[in-house]
Amino acid sequence: MLDAMLPGSFDPPTNGHLNLIKRAAHIADRLFVIVAVNRAKNYLFSGQERLEMMQELLKGYENITVVTWDRLIVDFARENDVHVMIRGVRALADFEYEFELAMTNKQIYKDLEVIFLPTDPQYFVLRASAIKELASYGAEVRPMVPDIVADKLRYKLDMLTLEDN
Amino acid sequence: MLDAMLPGSFDPPTNGHLNLIKRAAHIADRLFVIVAVNRAKNYLFSGQERLEMMQELLKGYENITVVTWDRLIVDFARENDVHVMIRGVRALADFEYEFELAMTNKQIYKDLEVIFLPTDPQYFVLRASAIKELASYGAEVRPMVPDIVADKLRYKLDMLTLEDN
Amino acid sequence: MLDAMLPGSFDPPTNGHLNLIKRAAHIADRLFVIVAVNRAKNYLFSGQERLEMMQELLKGYENITVVTWDRLIVDFARENDVHVMIRGVRALADFEYEFELAMTNKQIYKDLEVIFLPTDPQYFVLRASAIKELASYGAEVRPMVPDIVADKLRYKLDMLTLEDN
Amino acid sequence: MLDAMLPGSFDPPTNGHLNLIKRAAHIADRLFVIVAVNRAKNYLFSGQERLEMMQELLKGYENITVVTWDRLIVDFARENDVHVMIRGVRALADFEYEFELAMTNKQIYKDLEVIFLPTDPQYFVLRASAIKELASYGAEVRPMVPDIVADKLRYKLDMLTLEDN
Amino acid sequence: MLDAMLPGSFDPPTNGHLNLIKRAAHIADRLFVIVAVNRAKNYLFSGQERLEMMQELLKGYENITVVTWDRLIVDFARENDVHVMIRGVRALADFEYEFELAMTNKQIYKDLEVIFLPTDPQYFVLRASAIKELASYGAEVRPMVPDIVADKLRYKLDMLTLEDN
Amino acid sequence: MLDAMLPGSFDPPTNGHLNLIKRAAHIADRLFVIVAVNRAKNYLFSGQERLEMMQELLKGYENITVVTWDRLIVDFARENDVHVMIRGVRALADFEYEFELAMTNKQIYKDLEVIFLPTDPQYFVLRASAIKELASYGAEVRPMVPDIVADKLRYKLDMLTLEDN
Repeated sequence: MLDAMLPGSFDPPTNGHLNLIKRAAHIADRLFVIVAVNRAKNYLFSGQERLEMMQELLKGYENITVVTWDRLIVDFARENDVHVMIRGVRALADFEYEFELAMTNKQIYKDLEVIFLPTDPQYFVLRASAIKELASYGAEVRPMVPDIVADKLRYKLDMLTLEDN
Repeated sequence: MLDAMLPGSFDPPTNGHLNLIKRAAHIADRLFVIVAVNRAKNYLFSGQERLEMMQELLKGYENITVVTWDRLIVDFARENDVHVMIRGVRALADFEYEFELAMTNKQIYKDLEVIFLPTDPQYFVLRASAIKELASYGAEVRPMVPDIVADKLRYKLDMLTLEDN
Repeated sequence: MLDAMLPGSFDPPTNGHLNLIKRAAHIADRLFVIVAVNRAKNYLFSGQERLEMMQELLKGYENITVVTWDRLIVDFARENDVHVMIRGVRALADFEYEFELAMTNKQIYKDLEVIFLPTDPQYFVLRASAIKELASYGAEVRPMVPDIVADKLRYKLDMLTLEDN
Repeated sequence: MLDAMLPGSFDPPTNGHLNLIKRAAHIADRLFVIVAVNRAKNYLFSGQERLEMMQELLKGYENITVVTWDRLIVDFARENDVHVMIRGVRALADFEYEFELAMTNKQIYKDLEVIFLPTDPQYFVLRASAIKELASYGAEVRPMVPDIVADKLRYKLDMLTLEDN
Repeated sequence: MLDAMLPGSFDPPTNGHLNLIKRAAHIADRLFVIVAVNRAKNYLFSGQERLEMMQELLKGYENITVVTWDRLIVDFARENDVHVMIRGVRALADFEYEFELAMTNKQIYKDLEVIFLPTDPQYFVLRASAIKELASYGAEVRPMVPDIVADKLRYKLDMLTLEDN
Repeated sequence: MLDAMLPGSFDPPTNGHLNLIKRAAHIADRLFVIVAVNRAKNYLFSGQERLEMMQELLKGYENITVVTWDRLIVDFARENDVHVMIRGVRALADFEYEFELAMTNKQIYKDLEVIFLPTDPQYFVLRASAIKELASYGAEVRPMVPDIVADKLRYKLDMLTLEDN
C-alpha cells in the first residue's frame, strides 16, 4: 500500500502536470494532489480556483484526492501519515532545485522519501509561468493546457486587462 | 501493490547501494534487486559472486528478491510483469545519464515507469569504481562498504596481484 | 539567402553583444537585431535609447537592421518571414534557459529554427545586469562596454542618484 | 550564400541525425555532411558503408553533399572554404563537450564559426551507441533508425555473432 | 603569509557558513569575514545585527576579523591589500554563479585570486533563504543554525508578524 | 605558512597547467607540483619525462618543488604533512568530477582540504588529451603548449609513427 503526495502550484494546471499526475496515480495506491498556497507568492488563480480546476480535470480518478494546503508540505505528510512525495523533474535545472528541496524536507521530516518522476519529452516546454506569459501576449496556448484551463486563462487575463484601464 | 525492480552492477555492493535498496524496499511492496551481467563489461566480481554478496547483505528483508540477469532490463520487466524501475541518483552527472537511460527504456517498453531516488549526501562519494581503485592502492575502504565486501575485495585483489607475478 | 533575427534586451549593449552580432552578420545574409520591449520588465534605458545606442554602434554594417519590438518575437518572425533566430550562449545556465525558450518558441511557430552561437570566452563575464551593478558602485566598466555606452551609463546613473535625493 | 558542414560518426545514421541534417539544409544554401573516419576509433560500420547509407538516405536533397574525411575537420573547412560548422546539441552533457570542441576548433582555425542546433525532444534518446547496444540484445530499433539502417544493423550484428563462434 | 577574505550575506549565519569559515581559517594566516551590505537587497537582519551574530559565533578565533562592507568587495581587497577571496561552493548551480562572479571580480581587479572551498555534504541543504522560509512556517531550524541564531530568528519573525497585524 | 600540493598527469604540461601552477605558487608559501604516475593509465610521456619537462618549465620558482608519485595522493599529503590540495577547475564537467574526488580524498584523509582555482577563460580549451590528438593529426599546437613541450611532442609522435611502420 503506497500512499503518496504530489504537491505543486498548478497556476494553472498544464498538460504536463496532468501527464505526471496520471502516471503517479498508476504507481501509488492513493495519491494526494496538493495545491500549494504560499502566502509569499503571487498567484494568477486563487487556491480555490486552482483546486476546482484540478478537481474537474481529475474527476473519475478514484485513487486521487485533490486538496489545498497553506502550511509546510511536510506537515501535510505528518498529519496524513504519508511518507512518499513525488516530484516531476523536467530538466537539469529542475533537478538541482528538487534535489535541494528533497534534502531540506528530509532534514525536517526524517521519515519522508522524495522520488522523482522524469517528465516525458513532449511536455518539456510546458512551464506554467511561460504559458501565462504567452497567453498574456495573445498566443494560442490550447495545445499546452486542457481546454477548460485555456478558457479560464483567457477570461482571467481579460479581467486583469480591464482592471488596468 | 507496487512491484519494483532496482538494477545495478553492484561490483561490489557498497554502503550507498544498501542504503538505497533498503529505502526502495520501504516504498515498494515487492522489490527485485537485479545484479546485471553485461557481456561487454569487465567486472571484478563474477555475477555469481555479486549475487551471493547481495543475498548475504539483504537476508532478512522479506520483500526483496535478488536475481542475476544477462539480457535487457526491460525484458525482465516484461517477463515478470514489473512496471516500475527505481534508480538512485547521486549527482548531476548521474541524473543526465539516468534520464537518458530512462527515456531509452521507456521507448522500447511503453508500460515502464522509471523513478529516481536521491542518494543521501553521506553516500555521495561511494562510487564502486573509486572504491576498487582505492582498495587496489591499499587504502582502507571499510567505512565505505560492508565488512564482508571489504574482506572479499581484499582477497580478490590479492589474488589478482599474485596472478600478475 | 539566410534571413535571421537576433533579439535581446541590450540594456545596455555590451562588447559581448557586439561581438555576437557581428559574427551573426557574417553567417546571415540579412540580420535583424531586435531590441525587445517587454512591458513586464524594468529597463534602465528606454526602448528608444537602446535602439539609438545599437544603431550608432552598428552603423556601417549594411546587412544589419535594428528595430524595437514589444510583442512576441515569433510574431516578428511571422510578419517578416524570418525563420531563423540566433541566440548567444555563454555558459551552461544560459543553455538550459535558451533550450527551453527555443522549444517554447518552436511550439507556437513551427517554422522557426533557433540556432545557438557560443560566446567567445573573453566575453563570458559581460552580463549586462552585472555591468550595471558594477557601474552603480562606481567601478570602471569601459573595458566591458563601448565608450558611448559607458558615457550614457554614467550619465543615466548620475540622473537616478539625483532623483533619489 | 551560406556554406556549412555537419560532421559526425553516423555509425549508423539515426532518425535523430536525419532530422538534424534536414533542418540544417533549410538554413544553409549548401550543406556538406561529413562522415568522419578517425583512425583511433572503432566503428561498427566502415567509412564506406556509412557514406553509402547516408547518400541513400539523403538522395533528393539537392543542396546536400555527403563525403568521408579522415583528417581534422578544420582542414576540410580550410580546403573547401567553409566557415560554418553545424552541430546538434541534445542535452546538457552534449553542450559541455560541444562547447569545448567548438573553442578548440576555433583556436586552430580562426575563421570558423560553430553553431548549435537543438535536437527536437522526440529524438533525445536516439544516441547511436545506445541503439547499437539495444540491437545487439535483440531489441527492435526500427522506430529509432530508418528501415535501411535497421536492416544493415541486423545483418552486421548477425555477421559479428557468427565470427565470434 | 596568506591573507584572505570570505564575503557573504550571512542573513543569518548558518552551521554551513561556520563550517566553511573555520576551515578557511585553517588555510589562511589571517581571514576577513565580510558581512556584505548591498543597498539593493532586502535583508531580514540589519548589517549591524549580522555583524554581531558573526562576532559572537567566531570569538576565540584569533586570526579571524569580522567586518561589514557596503561597497564593491574588490574595493575592500584593494584597500586592505588582500589578494585572495574564498567562496564556498555547495552544488552545481552555486559553481556556475561563483565562477562568473570570480571572473567579473578578476576583470575589475587583476591581482585577485578567487578560490573555491567545497561545502561538506552534511551542510548541502543549509541555504539561509530556505531556513528563513522554514522558520516563518514554524519549523524547528535548530539543527541547521547555531542556537543564538535560532533564538534571534524566532524573535525577529515574531516581531514581523506583530507588525503585519 | 601554507604548504600545498597540486597533482596532475601533465602529459604533457600545457600553458593552462603553467598558468594554474604559477597562480597557486602565489597563494601557497610552498607548493609541491606532483606528477602522478598511475599504473592503470597509459601515458604518452613517461613519469621521468614529465618530471623533467615540468622542472625545466618551473625553474626559477623558488617555492615550487616538482616530484613524481605513484601511490595515493593522500599518502603524499600524510607523509609530507601537507593539508591543502589545489585543483584547477575549468568547466562544469571538471567541477563535478573534482567535487567527487575531493569528497573521496577527504573521506580517507580527514585533515585534507581541497581548494579549487578557476581556470582563466583563455585556457579553457587546453585539455592535454585534445592537444595530443591535434598534434597527432599534424596541427600546430605551439600556441597551446610551451615551445619545449611542442618540440618533445613532435619528436615523440614521430617516433611512434616510425614504430607503427
